[in-house]
Amino acid sequence: MPEFAAISTPALLLDEERCRRNIARLRDHVHALGVGLRPHLKTCKNLEIARWCMESPTGPATVSTLAEAEYFAAGGVRDICYAVGITPDKLPRAAALRAGGVDLTLTLDSLEAARGLIAFARSRALVFPVVLETDCDGHRAGLAPDDPQLVILARMLRDAGQEVRGVLTHAGSAYDGGPPERLQALAEQERAAAVRAAEILRSAGFACPVVSVGSTPTAHFARSLEGTSEVRAGTHVFQDLVMRRLGVCALEDIALSVLATVIGRRTDGGLLLDAGWTALSRDRGGPGGFEEHGYGIVCDLDGRPYPGLCIRDTNQEHALARGPYTPPLPVGAKVRILPVHACATAACFDEYHLLRDGRVVARLSRCRGW
Amino acid sequence: MPEFAAISTPALLLDEERCRRNIARLRDHVHALGVGLRPHLKTCKNLEIARWCMESPTGPATVSTLAEAEYFAAGGVRDICYAVGITPDKLPRAAALRAGGVDLTLTLDSLEAARGLIAFARSRALVFPVVLETDCDGHRAGLAPDDPQLVILARMLRDAGQEVRGVLTHAGSAYDGGPPERLQALAEQERAAAVRAAEILRSAGFACPVVSVGSTPTAHFARSLEGTSEVRAGTHVFQDLVMRRLGVCALEDIALSVLATVIGRRTDGGLLLDAGWTALSRDRGGPGGFEEHGYGIVCDLDGRPYPGLCIRDTNQEHALARGPYTPPLPVGAKVRILPVHACATAACFDEYHLLRDGRVVARLSRCRGW
Repeated sequence: MPEFAAISTPALLLDEERCRRNIARLRDHVHALGVGLRPHLKTCKNLEIARWCMESPTGPATVSTLAEAEYFAAGGVRDICYAVGITPDKLPRAAALRAGGVDLTLTLDSLEAARGLIAFARSRALVFPVVLETDCDGHRAGLAPDDPQLVILARMLRDAGQEVRGVLTHAGSAYDGGPPERLQALAEQERAAAVRAAEILRSAGFACPVVSVGSTPTAHFARSLEGTSEVRAGTHVFQDLVMRRLGVCALEDIALSVLATVIGRRTDGGLLLDAGWTALSRDRGGPGGFEEHGYGIVCDLDGRPYPGLCIRDTNQEHALARGPYTPPLPVGAKVRILPVHACATAACFDEYHLLRDGRVVARLSRCRGW
Repeated sequence: MPEFAAISTPALLLDEERCRRNIARLRDHVHALGVGLRPHLKTCKNLEIARWCMESPTGPATVSTLAEAEYFAAGGVRDICYAVGITPDKLPRAAALRAGGVDLTLTLDSLEAARGLIAFARSRALVFPVVLETDCDGHRAGLAPDDPQLVILARMLRDAGQEVRGVLTHAGSAYDGGPPERLQALAEQERAAAVRAAEILRSAGFACPVVSVGSTPTAHFARSLEGTSEVRAGTHVFQDLVMRRLGVCALEDIALSVLATVIGRRTDGGLLLDAGWTALSRDRGGPGGFEEHGYGIVCDLDGRPYPGLCIRDTNQEHALARGPYTPPLPVGAKVRILPVHACATAACFDEYHLLRDGRVVARLSRCRGW
């Protein structure tokens, strides 16, 4: 029995070799296409793992909360993009980060948000670098590349002394899945939307050095990144059952797992484990995923899946594992559960147990909150 | 605009008046039926709120993790039931709690788990009080009341010098909903199963003082608790959209909400908020619930719902709110989101902002981890 089996459960295990392999794979792919990575650190939320996946110890990096920005800034990261639309109430913290020497870029997609930023910047005599969020698939936020507001927005910011650094888009609909051809097409659509928005801004007199694209699926399926300046991806460091279903990775690439203990066997054969939704999250993955993998695939301590054995239900501190054949594991036995959505499962924990050759070599903390 | 609108978002708000009213309501109901409460503290995970809902500052109380047991024990709670099946690896911490003066009761439902407990207890010359988990609805764990193993298990524990304190059951299937008649029937079924198991144990010579039942829905719908000794419930302190759908509470009873900020408006009218699944959880509620309330109902700062406005999608740090009519709230506006599942939403946060008369009067921390 590996040494880590003695860890109190539930616990979050991270296989260092798989993690580094996943990171190298996407980095090589993106570099081969001629651009660099600005990894999204919302997935790992840990400085050491961030250093593995960033191009340098100072960045570039992407974050989804100011708490992440502050945490990584304290660890020496200097080039950070906060990729969630900025609102006026968050500007004091953004300003403090910039005053502390961090090149923090903000994101927005409306005249209204720009007005708020400009009013604050004026009151403090500050200049914020801004990327304009561009919509490539109707998934979430952003202006269509040919929306006339894009240039109006850029001019408003420039006229108010702010720095329009470029455009940013995210092909969120790639997580819905489909055949490789669809994901390749979405990657191309994402690239084309960002490049088109940049061209429009350039013809209006903006240099637009930043042309930022990215989602973990499109980053892997992209066959060209021409015209872009950087790729954002985060889930690739761990991979998960959603990425496996999308064809982004194999089961053997998933670097994260939840160590759990069998606490009971039901009369119908189902196994009760001590890893409820507080440990696995309630994320069901994309369309059709839940039927395939439930709330996670159950593996032995060496990481080999028990054929068909999945988490079919969870309560706060219970998981019910069941398969076509459910192995009659004894009470007290340990298993490892592969996560449906690595970001969501990792968010349940305050730390990783880092495994190298089946031994715990470190405990890595995660930053929390907002 | 209320003072709390200045809090950094997302943030967890707790309306003290609603919370205390919810607590009083269930306490009065259960007392009127002749028994006491052993509230499940997995929902609140905070000592002050625990004191509001326990019968006394020392308990009794129910917990779902040993971390909760340790946290509440440090706060003076002395009568604690750990209501998740015990495994051998967790016994050293259980023993430490008991050595520290806590009357910690353990739960199990199999000969196998009993053997593990007995072996450990012998090696340390300890006596653990144990309740035997009984199944009343096939939902999760426990032995059927008339399963001959129940008495065998009790005898095995007694013969090994352990204390068989009674039986415990949980009508988990009540969360699936249905008309009031179904919930009343499930409450009666839960009561009857526990009482039957206790009777069988008594006729085998066990005093069986503990006859523990409970789930928030069955606790509210029970019309008799005859023969039981205590009721466990936890979600009642906050209530949520699942409980409202079950008819347990009204919308106006929900004491918990997530304060969020509008970060953008989509061209289709949808509002983007800065409260993603890291703040709301991915819990969709019971059957049919998601169609009704999505990931939460959006209210103004006074807690009045915008008609039909729900969270229809979430990403890590984004929520998309949409309704039949979506109010064109400005970027930077604040809203409050009522939780689908209070336990899951609260678990996203490290603290509550406690509101009294619309003012923040305290920040209450939550215990975390396992």
